[in-house]
Amino acid sequence: MKCFRMTLAYEGTRYRGWQKQGNTPDTIQGKLEALLSRLLEQPVEVHGSGRTDAGAHARRQVASFRAETERTAAELLPLIRRYLPEDIGLLELAEAAPRFHARLNCVGKTYVYRVWTGEAPNVFERRLLWQLPGRELDLDRMREAAAPLLGEHDFRAFCSLKRFKKSTVRRLDSITIERLGDETRFTLSGSGFLYNMVRILVGTLVEVGLGERSPGSVGEALASLDRQQAGQTTPAQGLSVWDVRY
Amino acid sequence: MKCFRMTLAYEGTRYRGWQKQGNTPDTIQGKLEALLSRLLEQPVEVHGSGRTDAGAHARRQVASFRAETERTAAELLPLIRRYLPEDIGLLELAEAAPRFHARLNCVGKTYVYRVWTGEAPNVFERRLLWQLPGRELDLDRMREAAAPLLGEHDFRAFCSLKRFKKSTVRRLDSITIERLGDETRFTLSGSGFLYNMVRILVGTLVEVGLGERSPGSVGEALASLDRQQAGQTTPAQGLSVWDVRY
Repeated sequence: MKCFRMTLAYEGTRYRGWQKQGNTPDTIQGKLEALLSRLLEQPVEVHGSGRTDAGAHARRQVASFRAETERTAAELLPLIRRYLPEDIGLLELAEAAPRFHARLNCVGKTYVYRVWTGEAPNVFERRLLWQLPGRELDLDRMREAAAPLLGEHDFRAFCSLKRFKKSTVRRLDSITIERLGDETRFTLSGSGFLYNMVRILVGTLVEVGLGERSPGSVGEALASLDRQQAGQTTPAQGLSVWDVRY
Repeated sequence: MKCFRMTLAYEGTRYRGWQKQGNTPDTIQGKLEALLSRLLEQPVEVHGSGRTDAGAHARRQVASFRAETERTAAELLPLIRRYLPEDIGLLELAEAAPRFHARLNCVGKTYVYRVWTGEAPNVFERRLLWQLPGRELDLDRMREAAAPLLGEHDFRAFCSLKRFKKSTVRRLDSITIERLGDETRFTLSGSGFLYNMVRILVGTLVEVGLGERSPGSVGEALASLDRQQAGQTTPAQGLSVWDVRY
């Protein structure tokens, strides 16, 4: 039995997210499992570093699978690439340690959320951006608001789930907010993220940037542990898994 | 009667090119004329700086139209933007001199053709690139081949039309071939371009870059005035109108 590690890029526009749902082929995981099971002539389970939402993307996502095969990673790579749809790219394939597991071994992740505020729309990257044409985002206000989020906290106020079976404590290592032309880019790195956490964090910060709430209210929302105190969930299409660390 | 000048960006993927074909709404020109005629409550004709092929794009395309209206460009701009589909962006709208005509007044154009040769596919810009995964393009060979194309020539060897009603003489001012990571970008500027000329020029240069033909054969193809001597027509999706000069 060999264990393989895949590094993937995908445009999630036409998928219902990472996680398979029954036997429908419209998830990234479902697509990969169907393809690998067929190519390797055995049932293959694919484990991603984590789920991504319907419509969200990955610049670098890592996934692992095991299979009984004589083939090397170098032999499998072009074969898998040939059959992948054009919105899923296999960047790298390598044989991994026998017990490697993309989710269990993950020690950190970086997500990027891209907001477009140009007066003119961005037609070429429209599937990768949340467009707020002509709106002004105050970067200093957002940075001030983001500061108390850093470090280890219970982030349940920034999670869409209503019931929590597992810990909602995570460590947020950095939030970078930068202006790139007409784009405002949020880069968040941490130990891991709760369901919808990046989209709610960014949604709350954008409300601060637009002047709709005070910078101080973000730290208060965190402390409240109450989803109602945080801001809106931004659209999935602006979100990308940027990097995964092991 | 006012005359307006539009600067447009579009992703041509789902259109049958710029030029209207009967009353079908699946061309850029057809889409714009239908929208402007409805908004301005009069038949509006839109003149582009030139046609673009089915599936080709524009980073900056210029078009003009005339209309009887009290409205200023500043008033019309947000109105038009609101009703344009998300793959056509109105970057600028300005009132122009009464006799301005986007095609007749055009004095020069720049086209860009983008080729991707990374081993791994590019999933995010796949609609904007011609992908030749893992192929090696020799830039020096292509630059050597391109040199005799510069200046004023009869370019009929690089045109898909079989019969020529008008002059096939054009002036090519520059061809820049550069490597940007895994992308090879061809930038061509000139007085104007014949039907499929950029795609055939790039197709011929790529054959040189792949080692399939000699650098000298490109100047020979030009001198032959024979389409059979030139190379293949590259796919439209790698092509963009980059800029138009007046």
